[in-house]
Amino acid sequence: MKVGILGGGQLGRMLLQAAANYVVETYVLENDEHCPAAHLCHHFVKGDIKDFDTVYNFGKMVDALTIEIEAVNVEALEQLEKEGIKMFPKPSAIKTIRNKIIQKQFYKEHEIPSPPFTITQNKNELTNHLSFLPAVHKIGQGGYDGKGVQIIKTKEDISKGFDAPSVLEKMVNTDKEIAIIIATNERGETAIYPPVEMVFDPVLNLLDYQIAPARISQNVLWKTEAIALKVVKSLQSPGLFAIELFVDKNGEVCVNETAPRVHNSGHHTIEASYCSQYDMLWRVILGYPLGNTANITCSSIVNLLGAPGYSGNAVYEGLNEVLKMDTVFVHLYGKAQTKPGRKMGHVTILGKETADLTYKANKIKSLLQVKSEQ
Amino acid sequence: MKVGILGGGQLGRMLLQAAANYVVETYVLENDEHCPAAHLCHHFVKGDIKDFDTVYNFGKMVDALTIEIEAVNVEALEQLEKEGIKMFPKPSAIKTIRNKIIQKQFYKEHEIPSPPFTITQNKNELTNHLSFLPAVHKIGQGGYDGKGVQIIKTKEDISKGFDAPSVLEKMVNTDKEIAIIIATNERGETAIYPPVEMVFDPVLNLLDYQIAPARISQNVLWKTEAIALKVVKSLQSPGLFAIELFVDKNGEVCVNETAPRVHNSGHHTIEASYCSQYDMLWRVILGYPLGNTANITCSSIVNLLGAPGYSGNAVYEGLNEVLKMDTVFVHLYGKAQTKPGRKMGHVTILGKETADLTYKANKIKSLLQVKSEQ
Repeated sequence: MKVGILGGGQLGRMLLQAAANYVVETYVLENDEHCPAAHLCHHFVKGDIKDFDTVYNFGKMVDALTIEIEAVNVEALEQLEKEGIKMFPKPSAIKTIRNKIIQKQFYKEHEIPSPPFTITQNKNELTNHLSFLPAVHKIGQGGYDGKGVQIIKTKEDISKGFDAPSVLEKMVNTDKEIAIIIATNERGETAIYPPVEMVFDPVLNLLDYQIAPARISQNVLWKTEAIALKVVKSLQSPGLFAIELFVDKNGEVCVNETAPRVHNSGHHTIEASYCSQYDMLWRVILGYPLGNTANITCSSIVNLLGAPGYSGNAVYEGLNEVLKMDTVFVHLYGKAQTKPGRKMGHVTILGKETADLTYKANKIKSLLQVKSEQ
Repeated sequence: MKVGILGGGQLGRMLLQAAANYVVETYVLENDEHCPAAHLCHHFVKGDIKDFDTVYNFGKMVDALTIEIEAVNVEALEQLEKEGIKMFPKPSAIKTIRNKIIQKQFYKEHEIPSPPFTITQNKNELTNHLSFLPAVHKIGQGGYDGKGVQIIKTKEDISKGFDAPSVLEKMVNTDKEIAIIIATNERGETAIYPPVEMVFDPVLNLLDYQIAPARISQNVLWKTEAIALKVVKSLQSPGLFAIELFVDKNGEVCVNETAPRVHNSGHHTIEASYCSQYDMLWRVILGYPLGNTANITCSSIVNLLGAPGYSGNAVYEGLNEVLKMDTVFVHLYGKAQTKPGRKMGHVTILGKETADLTYKANKIKSLLQVKSEQ
């Protein structure tokens, strides 16, 4: 089977590492021939994933397509779908998800709990919603990796808002942020991973470190699974989905957002699960039985982000110290250039005790810095 | 760092899967552009690993070289070593190991226990050693994957012997066959994996299934570690080595043979160890600290060999049944063509109980057959 991946970043890289356990001919479309995934596929095609003709021509070379980023030419995917190319996920699911306004409306329509919101067309409109603050302003289209999101606490923050169609979402009094991955295949079968618990960097608004499984009550777990399953079933598409959710202090659960692809919150599954999220997506694409989502052991993930103030050829300060640690797995994404906040790698920690996992996560965060050559 | 691999088979494939966790530019030299490793490196070079000029020119492109098979042009490696290319292992170690006669003499010289042997120049000479039977006839140069080895039990078997310089090795009254992997870096530090226990297919003389860790006494473990460490230290080369040993009914341990590279007996380390053998070799090559050789859990490996009587386009009968099994990891090597006994993949089983591991191993062996299209 010939399978194409739109996008060649670290998610594509890890997807291709997993592909090498199966018999599959892999294609990658990406503008940068030095991207993390370029050298791990059978056929690398240099081109713009946002361009109709490029995506269409790429799609005609393969039997099935998947994505590692939502910002792709969906119109080309729709045409390819009509012509019989299999899609994981379907373009309709990408369309629903990649625009935050449509995504929010989708939750509302399907009675999926999600924070209250209003839609703004430009920055000025924010002044009409002062009673709605504190809120989060999310740009409709084009947001990614913490970009396109601004916290608007008071009137004074309005200048930070987006002058484009956006969602203004009421801030939730969050107790925990969790994420859950669900895979669903063409037969409609589902495989649900145990939810993970996330801790965010308040400055860069990127995932900071993560504990798996999430420390939540059985009740919250059931709600989470039910809500996430509703999201996936409502999207009516095979593929693998990551649903990020808020848990409030009363144990109420609501959806923050969904990604229709392998996800940062599932990196730990490479070592900590019997079937990794990457393996699972291949099983979905290749028509194999779904895998076992159970944890082998508890785990934690530290994301390696480019340190503030450093841009240029990446240098991994403290790497040797981290490589000496037991029960630790280092993943560097092979990006030559670092810049502040860029995702350069991650470290997975296995362990039985949360205390041990958080101790090691914090140790790694302080030891390992991605800087640049002087 | 630019690193070249001589050979592009499944060992190269898994080595490259692991390489994608680090920042390293990879090169593969192999005659077949459809080999399992060809599409997973940055630079694939088509060429004969036994040809001096080809290997020399390939080596000049990189900073360091490793191998995934011993049958390479060692003279070219010696020249490259003189010119400053780093070698994992050193050509001297390959030279010692790849010729069974020299390997046996090496054990004798270094007082490393190994079964008694005599050297034969041709088939006729075997008649001079009838009192030495039952014995194993091993061809000096060119044996690989069960080829180049014949069991000579009686006078009648002599016709099966090799008409070339060979080793005639006394058959050991073996209780167990075990293997142990040791990595050693340029600083002379070593990392020792727990030994594994092997069960062989009596017909094809290939590894059939394996249990890790080996069920041996503390005494046998100590002997095994001491002997294997002696082998590695005596080879005086950085790299990763797999030492196969016999344990007799009295608990005596002796070396069967050594491989100066990642090895079939270490496949389970991908999922069952904190640092896989592949990760470990990259750590050695890249100058990183050695990794943690401890098991995360016990494991078993089933090798998927081409079924007898089938040659042609490979078909994996029973694959779905095996993919449905919990705690099981399937690795297919992506070889389009199968033939009897060809290594087509392996399956790793994780578990705490030996009974569970052997039950599943046998189930997989009976379920999963590599046949060919009719």
